[in-house]
Amino acid sequence: MDKILRINMGAQGGPKFAEAPIGEFAGLGGRGLTSTIVAREVPPTCHPLSQENKLVIAPGLLSGTTAAMSGRLSIGCKSPLTGGIKESNSGGQPSQVLARLGYAAVILEGKPEGDDLYRIFINKDGVTITVDNSLKMLGNYAVVEKMQKEFGDKIACISIGQAGEMKLAASSIACTDMEGRPARHAGRGGVGAVMGSKGVKVIVLDDTGTSVRQPKDPDKFREANKIFVDGLRKHGVTGEALPAYGTNVLTNILNEAGGYPTYNFREGRFAGASKISGETQAALEFDRGGVPTHGCHRGCVIRCSGIYNDKDGHYISKQPEYETVWAHGGNCGIDDLDKIALMDFIDDDTGLDTIDTGVAIGIAMEAGVIKYGDSDGAISLLKEVGKGTPMGRILGSGAAVVGKVFGVERVPVVKGQAMPAYDPRAVKGLGVTYATSPMGADHTAGYATATNILKVGGYVDPLKAQGQVDLSRNLQIATAAIDSTGMCVFIAFALLDLPETFQALLDMLNAHYGINLNADNVADLGKTILKLERDFNNRAGLTKEQDRLPAFFKLQQVPPHDVTFDITDEELDQVFNF
Amino acid sequence: MDKILRINMGAQGGPKFAEAPIGEFAGLGGRGLTSTIVAREVPPTCHPLSQENKLVIAPGLLSGTTAAMSGRLSIGCKSPLTGGIKESNSGGQPSQVLARLGYAAVILEGKPEGDDLYRIFINKDGVTITVDNSLKMLGNYAVVEKMQKEFGDKIACISIGQAGEMKLAASSIACTDMEGRPARHAGRGGVGAVMGSKGVKVIVLDDTGTSVRQPKDPDKFREANKIFVDGLRKHGVTGEALPAYGTNVLTNILNEAGGYPTYNFREGRFAGASKISGETQAALEFDRGGVPTHGCHRGCVIRCSGIYNDKDGHYISKQPEYETVWAHGGNCGIDDLDKIALMDFIDDDTGLDTIDTGVAIGIAMEAGVIKYGDSDGAISLLKEVGKGTPMGRILGSGAAVVGKVFGVERVPVVKGQAMPAYDPRAVKGLGVTYATSPMGADHTAGYATATNILKVGGYVDPLKAQGQVDLSRNLQIATAAIDSTGMCVFIAFALLDLPETFQALLDMLNAHYGINLNADNVADLGKTILKLERDFNNRAGLTKEQDRLPAFFKLQQVPPHDVTFDITDEELDQVFNF
Repeated sequence: MDKILRINMGAQGGPKFAEAPIGEFAGLGGRGLTSTIVAREVPPTCHPLSQENKLVIAPGLLSGTTAAMSGRLSIGCKSPLTGGIKESNSGGQPSQVLARLGYAAVILEGKPEGDDLYRIFINKDGVTITVDNSLKMLGNYAVVEKMQKEFGDKIACISIGQAGEMKLAASSIACTDMEGRPARHAGRGGVGAVMGSKGVKVIVLDDTGTSVRQPKDPDKFREANKIFVDGLRKHGVTGEALPAYGTNVLTNILNEAGGYPTYNFREGRFAGASKISGETQAALEFDRGGVPTHGCHRGCVIRCSGIYNDKDGHYISKQPEYETVWAHGGNCGIDDLDKIALMDFIDDDTGLDTIDTGVAIGIAMEAGVIKYGDSDGAISLLKEVGKGTPMGRILGSGAAVVGKVFGVERVPVVKGQAMPAYDPRAVKGLGVTYATSPMGADHTAGYATATNILKVGGYVDPLKAQGQVDLSRNLQIATAAIDSTGMCVFIAFALLDLPETFQALLDMLNAHYGINLNADNVADLGKTILKLERDFNNRAGLTKEQDRLPAFFKLQQVPPHDVTFDITDEELDQVFNF
Repeated sequence: MDKILRINMGAQGGPKFAEAPIGEFAGLGGRGLTSTIVAREVPPTCHPLSQENKLVIAPGLLSGTTAAMSGRLSIGCKSPLTGGIKESNSGGQPSQVLARLGYAAVILEGKPEGDDLYRIFINKDGVTITVDNSLKMLGNYAVVEKMQKEFGDKIACISIGQAGEMKLAASSIACTDMEGRPARHAGRGGVGAVMGSKGVKVIVLDDTGTSVRQPKDPDKFREANKIFVDGLRKHGVTGEALPAYGTNVLTNILNEAGGYPTYNFREGRFAGASKISGETQAALEFDRGGVPTHGCHRGCVIRCSGIYNDKDGHYISKQPEYETVWAHGGNCGIDDLDKIALMDFIDDDTGLDTIDTGVAIGIAMEAGVIKYGDSDGAISLLKEVGKGTPMGRILGSGAAVVGKVFGVERVPVVKGQAMPAYDPRAVKGLGVTYATSPMGADHTAGYATATNILKVGGYVDPLKAQGQVDLSRNLQIATAAIDSTGMCVFIAFALLDLPETFQALLDMLNAHYGINLNADNVADLGKTILKLERDFNNRAGLTKEQDRLPAFFKLQQVPPHDVTFDITDEELDQVFNF
C-alpha cells in the first residue's frame, strides 16, 4: 500500500502504465484518497465520459491487514449521474487483494481511440494490459467465469457488465465475493460508465505469493482487533440482527415506522412487506439450502450477506440487500422474493445500481409503462438494458432520465441520484443526508436511520425537524472518515454505542501505521474530505440550491403519519457550517 | 391589452378562469412580461411539470397595432429542458389576435387531475374551456384542421402536438400563420411540455368584431411606422437578403466563414452546403410553385418565410429556416432539401424544436444509431416521436438526454439546451451568448453573427477573443428589450445600422402609449429583464459554472480555421457586470 498505479488508457500507441510511490498522498486511503485525487486532478467541469475524468480505485487504510471488516473498496470519479464528485464503495475481495499487492490506488486515466475493449491483469510480478474483444457485451458473471478459466479461481475481479460498456449513468462496477461471484457492487453514481469510457472491461487481481500487511506494532494491533470484534459481536445490530436476517431485517422495521417508500414514494407502508421481509427471506434461504449468514470478504465478522436459491436449490443471486428488495419490491408494489432475487441477479450481471434501477422502474410504472406490482413486466424491462434497446438504455440511465423521458413529475432524486429505501418525510434525518451529501441522495453517506429508527447512538424523533441537521452532519463526518479506512460502514452501529469499539478502531490504525490518532483527528479527517468534495461540486456548478429535496416532498404528505419534509432550506444550509 | 387572463387548470371541479386588469404589470409586454411574471410567481425550484409552474403567453407592447413586424408572441415558464427561466417566442398570427382581444397575457396555472385534454376558445365574448379528448395524440396540423372546421378559417391557434402531450423536453408550441398552418413555433426550452402538463391541447383565438389597437397619437405613430418600414426596406439584410432567400441565406455565408457546424460540431464546413443553401432553396420553391417570399404574420414587411412544395407542387412544409436546414442537414451530413423539408414538417406537426431535435439526431449518429447522411434513417427516427416509442421519447427529450442515454461525450448543449447553427469556436461572439444567456444555448438571445459575420453594427473578428464579451452583452440587452415589444428580432439588423430606424421604434412606442422613452430607457429595460431572469436561474440552482460551453469546445480545434473557444471563464463572468 505504498505505491500508486496509473494506467493511461489514452496513451499514444496503446495503454501505458506507471507506478510511483504514494508520496504526497501518504496517510490517505479509501474515500479520502479517491476524493483527494479526483478533487485535485479532475477538471470539475469536464464531461464525465471524457479523457479528462479519472477512475480512482483505492483500498482503505486497513485493507489487506488482519483487521476484521476491512474489505471495502472505494471507487471515485466525476459522476456521470450527478455531475459531481463520486465515491462509491463495494465489499468483496478486491480491496484486500489490491492492498496485499501493495497498491494504495489504481487510477485509470485518458481514453482510448477506437472501440477495443481491454482487460488488466495485476499480480505480484506486475501489470499486463491486453485487448480482449471477446469480452464485449458480456455480463459480469460470464466475464468472471472466463477470467477464472484463464487465471484460476483464486483471483478477484473488478468488472463492468453491458451497462458500463454502454456508458449508462446507472451502471455499477462489480467486485467478486469470496466465492468468486461478481455480486458486490460499487453501485451508485454511474462509476461503471466511467470504467466503460476508459475501455476497461475487467481488472483481474491475483495476490498469490503476497502476504498479509504487517502492522508496526503487531501485539497492540492484535489486541485492538480482538476488542473491535468483541464489540461487533456484542452489539444487537451487528451481532444479531444483521447476521441473522441480513440488511433486509429493515423491511419490517421501516414498514412499521411508516418510512417504507411504496408505489414510487406515494405511501409509507407496503401491504406486502411481510412477504419480502428479512425474516421471510432468511427462512426461505435456509429451507432451500442457501445461506442466510455469509460474509462478502475475508475478515468479515458481521456476515450480513447470504445466498438465495430457487425452490430447487439452484443459485439465483446473492441474498438481495434491503435497498434492493425495496427498490424492486415495495417501491414497485412487488411482493415476490423470487422475482426480486432474479432482478438482483440481472442487475448484478448487467452491472446496474439496484437502487437507481428499481426507482427507475417505479417511475416507469407511475408513467403507465407497466402496472405497479407487475413483476414479470419489470423483469422484461430490466432485461432490455443488457440488450441495449432504447427502453433498456432509458432505464439504465437512471431514475432522473426516466422521469424526464416519460414526463413524470414525481421523481425522487437529489443531484440526479435516486433516493434509497427510506422516505425522507418519515425519516427526516436521512432526508437531510439525501439533500446535502456531496454524493446525491445516498443513505450510506450519513445513515440517520440508525438514530431515527434503530435508536443507535441515541434517539432523534424521525418525524420531527429538531435535531436532524446536527445528526446528519455528525454522521456524514464520521462516515467520510470510516469510508477511508476500508471498514464496512456497518461497524458504525457498534462505534456509536460502544466507546471501547471506537477506541479499538483508533488503536488498530495507530498500531498499524505507528501513529497517534485520536477521535478529534478522525473527525477532522471526515471534515476535510467533505469539504474538498463539496468544493469540487461547487466548482462543477452544484451549489446549495442543489442541496434540496424535490418539491413534492415538501408539498405532499406521506401516510400513515401524514408528514411532509419540513426542514427549511436555511437549516439544510447549516449542515456544512464546520 | 389592458387585462390578464388567468386560467387555473387545477381548480376544484374543473378549470376556472378569471380576468383582471394588468395593474402592477402595466408597461410590460412580451418577454418583459413573461419573465417578470415567471420570476415573481413561479417557485424557482419547482418541477417544471408541476402545478407550481405557470405558462405565460404574452403579445408584445406593439402587437395588435398597425406597427409593422409586431407579431411575435412570447411564451414563458420554468423550462423542462434547462431547469431555468424560459422565454421562447414565435411568429404567426396569435400575438396580433390576442392583443386585439385585449389580453396582455394569458396565464395557464395549476394542473388538472386525471388525463382529460382541454381546448380553450377565446373571442370578444369571453373564454370557453372544454374537455376534448378527440384531440388526444393528434399532430398540430390535424388539431388546427379540426378547429377550423368548427370555428372557421379566421381563427388563430396556439397548440401542441404529440410531443407536448407526452411532456417531452424538446417540445414546442405551434402558432398558426396567415394561411392557418401551425408552422410557426415557440420552439425552444420545452414550452410545449409545460402546456401539455396543464392538459391544454389548443387555444383557439378569434378576433372577429375587434379592431386594431389605437395609438394615443395616431399621426406620430403613422409617421414613425413609415420611417421604420423604410429603414427595414433599405437595409441589405432585411430589405434584400431575407426576403429573397429567407433565413437560409446564411448557409453559404456561415459555410464560407468556416462556422457551419458539420457532423455534430466536428467540422466547420459542409461539402454539401450549396445543395441546401437559401439560394438553391428559393429557386426550387419558385420552380415548384411555392413561395420564396412570404410573411408569417399580418404586418410583416421582411417576409423571410416561404412555402416549400414537392416536385409535384404539393405542400411539404413552410420554407424551413436556416437553423432547421442546418440541424437536419449539414449537422447530420444530409444535403437533400426535400428530406429536410419533410423533417421540418414532422417537427412542426409533432410539435418539436427543430434545433434540439436535429442536434439530437446528430448525437444519435455520433453514437452509431444511424450513419451520418442517412436521411431516410433520420426521418424514421423522427417519426418515432409522435408514436411515443422509447426511441421517440429519447429523441423528443432533446440533445442532452440523447447524449446521456447513448453515452456520448460530444454533446453541444449549454444549460441542457442544444446549440444552434453557428460554431462557437468560429463565431466567438455567439459562443459568449450561448454560454451566458439565461435561456441556454440560444442564437436569438444575442445574435453576434450580425457583427461577427454580417458586419452589421460594426465588425468584431469572429475568430478572435477580443471584443466578444462586450458585443454579446450589448446584444443580449438590446434583444431582451426588443423581445418585449412584439417586434421580430430581425428588425435589429436595421436598428444596429440605421439610427433613424431605431428612433422610429421609440417613436412608435411613445406615440402608442403617450410616453417618452429614450434609448437609455430601452437599455435599462433590457438590463432589468436579464437581471431578473438571471436571478431566477440563480435561485433555481444555475450559477456561473453553468455559464460555460462544454469542455470539448475549449480542447478540440474546429477546421478549417483550427480554432478553439478561447474566451476565459473570467471573461464570460463579465457579461453581466452591469
